[in-house]
Amino acid sequence: MGERIRRVRIVLVGVGNLGRRFCRILARKGPEIESRYGLRLMLVGAADSRGIAYAPEGLDPARVAALKEKGKSVRTYPGAGQEGTGLDLLREIEVDVLCEATPVNLKAGAEPALTTIREALAREIHVVTPNKGPIVLAYRELVKLAQEHGAELRFDGTVAGGLPALYLGARDLRGATIHRVEAVPNLVTGYILDLLAGGLSWEEALGRGREEGVLEADPSFDLDGWDAAAKLVIIANHVLGYPATLEEVEREGIRGVDPAAVRRARERGALFRLLARAEQEGDGYRLTVRPEEIPPGHPLSLLGKKGMGVVYHTDIYGTISATIREEDPTPSAATMLRDILDIFLP
Amino acid sequence: MGERIRRVRIVLVGVGNLGRRFCRILARKGPEIESRYGLRLMLVGAADSRGIAYAPEGLDPARVAALKEKGKSVRTYPGAGQEGTGLDLLREIEVDVLCEATPVNLKAGAEPALTTIREALAREIHVVTPNKGPIVLAYRELVKLAQEHGAELRFDGTVAGGLPALYLGARDLRGATIHRVEAVPNLVTGYILDLLAGGLSWEEALGRGREEGVLEADPSFDLDGWDAAAKLVIIANHVLGYPATLEEVEREGIRGVDPAAVRRARERGALFRLLARAEQEGDGYRLTVRPEEIPPGHPLSLLGKKGMGVVYHTDIYGTISATIREEDPTPSAATMLRDILDIFLP
Repeated sequence: MGERIRRVRIVLVGVGNLGRRFCRILARKGPEIESRYGLRLMLVGAADSRGIAYAPEGLDPARVAALKEKGKSVRTYPGAGQEGTGLDLLREIEVDVLCEATPVNLKAGAEPALTTIREALAREIHVVTPNKGPIVLAYRELVKLAQEHGAELRFDGTVAGGLPALYLGARDLRGATIHRVEAVPNLVTGYILDLLAGGLSWEEALGRGREEGVLEADPSFDLDGWDAAAKLVIIANHVLGYPATLEEVEREGIRGVDPAAVRRARERGALFRLLARAEQEGDGYRLTVRPEEIPPGHPLSLLGKKGMGVVYHTDIYGTISATIREEDPTPSAATMLRDILDIFLP
Repeated sequence: MGERIRRVRIVLVGVGNLGRRFCRILARKGPEIESRYGLRLMLVGAADSRGIAYAPEGLDPARVAALKEKGKSVRTYPGAGQEGTGLDLLREIEVDVLCEATPVNLKAGAEPALTTIREALAREIHVVTPNKGPIVLAYRELVKLAQEHGAELRFDGTVAGGLPALYLGARDLRGATIHRVEAVPNLVTGYILDLLAGGLSWEEALGRGREEGVLEADPSFDLDGWDAAAKLVIIANHVLGYPATLEEVEREGIRGVDPAAVRRARERGALFRLLARAEQEGDGYRLTVRPEEIPPGHPLSLLGKKGMGVVYHTDIYGTISATIREEDPTPSAATMLRDILDIFLP
């Protein structure tokens, strides 16, 4: 290994739950990544909904995280904060990679993320994002845009948190025919179903979910299966090469689940989960999301409250399952590091 | 996608259990890989212990497989068979990638595989191998040799059959500290332990294993834990960056296992398996291989007779588990395809 250090100039747009944790990871892992891989990961800019911060020699990511943890905008970063937007950063400074980590917003056409990502790719800036919205709504357009501009687009964090479900499927299973995919890619529904299994009523379970901050103000995205469906669409497009849309997913959320059925399943040693499934059918796949009883012995039957997973049934690689247990969103945030390293390392 | 087809000239050395299946996979998947990825995988040469076959425009891999299935040497391949060795092929024809698939031979210094692989790398020929021997005994030397000659070295099939345990660990977990690895990477010991759990005596279980061709003539490699230890050493070197040797593994095989204990474990819903473990200790790792009871709920507790798996406990990516069920050695053979695609595709 030589002494040459490659500088990677990162702009982070969206410094919420994941963005903040990504800053903590950069602070914690930066020195080791520089010494081990010769990459200096420099956070040269950050944008939240109230402003930006910018420093060509790098912001202190721990300081950015600390500001956000105190409820302040990055605009208050001493000597570097100012008014502006993520787009301003992409247009005005030298950037190697955009980390787009604003909240998912399928209803609003995945904006502002989609515009930010388009701008970055058109400027030959690599893009890393755990934001499902743009990938679900514009997969083909964005992949093409990236190719045309010689930029890389990575989005491992869009499916099953920190589990490399997409890398595993899209890269390690190349050459295989994948007959079937089963995935439990959503944590919130598993959390609620486990409360029902434990004896709570629907009302009690939802109340607990709100108290503990697990449920969003509008819980429809999780409970009605939109999140799982979005992830299934990404798997279909990226792993299966099947140009699925959100509309074609046969989607049934968990709101109609009878708590007694969930309790009985637990008594039998089975697990109730919102299962996303792609099943080969004709030239394509049939995509479904629905609550199901996962029988004992199934590779996904051991998922706890913090567990997500995927099973790929293939012709030449056997049946391959992968699961993750994540205690907090750090692994989901760390997918941005994984994606950056995938772009810049051989 | 344009119309340009890239030709990949493959020499296969070793056409046994895995090599034969690899030929079948090439025959079955070749056209699809050409149309989908623009790669024409051409088997230009094959070598077994009795001779070689060679055709610059490509042998028919199905024909090579058929010859071997009939117990014949590739030397009898009409119009292409002749006397010679794998080394002759590397020295005399144009080759892009060597697939080395001779049997593991740790006792004989991993020969002849090690010499063949060295020759290929020195000639700037990429190397793909599921053969543990050379990787266990000469990991650092071979990685260095490959770097010096601008050749790629891939060996995903050396650990846990068709499960991409090495890709997952070495690539998707980059940036993480891996505190602990637990792996069940060996099928033979699981097969025997399950027979014991089912009520057979040691003598009966070994007899059944011999009858069904699961046990090698010298079963020591599996039963005494050498195979699992070798795989653990490869994980340590390649995933953990820890320069382990086979000698330092604390190794206990399964021969001392009391069948009554295995039966009792099954009654409790637990699974007895030969577990390979790397545990962070000081600046390095402590490596152990020993029979253990895997408790219900553990991610490896559902492995059946045909199952292998690995669990990575990390700091920033949570706990990630991956398992495979392979009904026959096809997935293990398919790792050579995975490795080739990993070399030649972006």
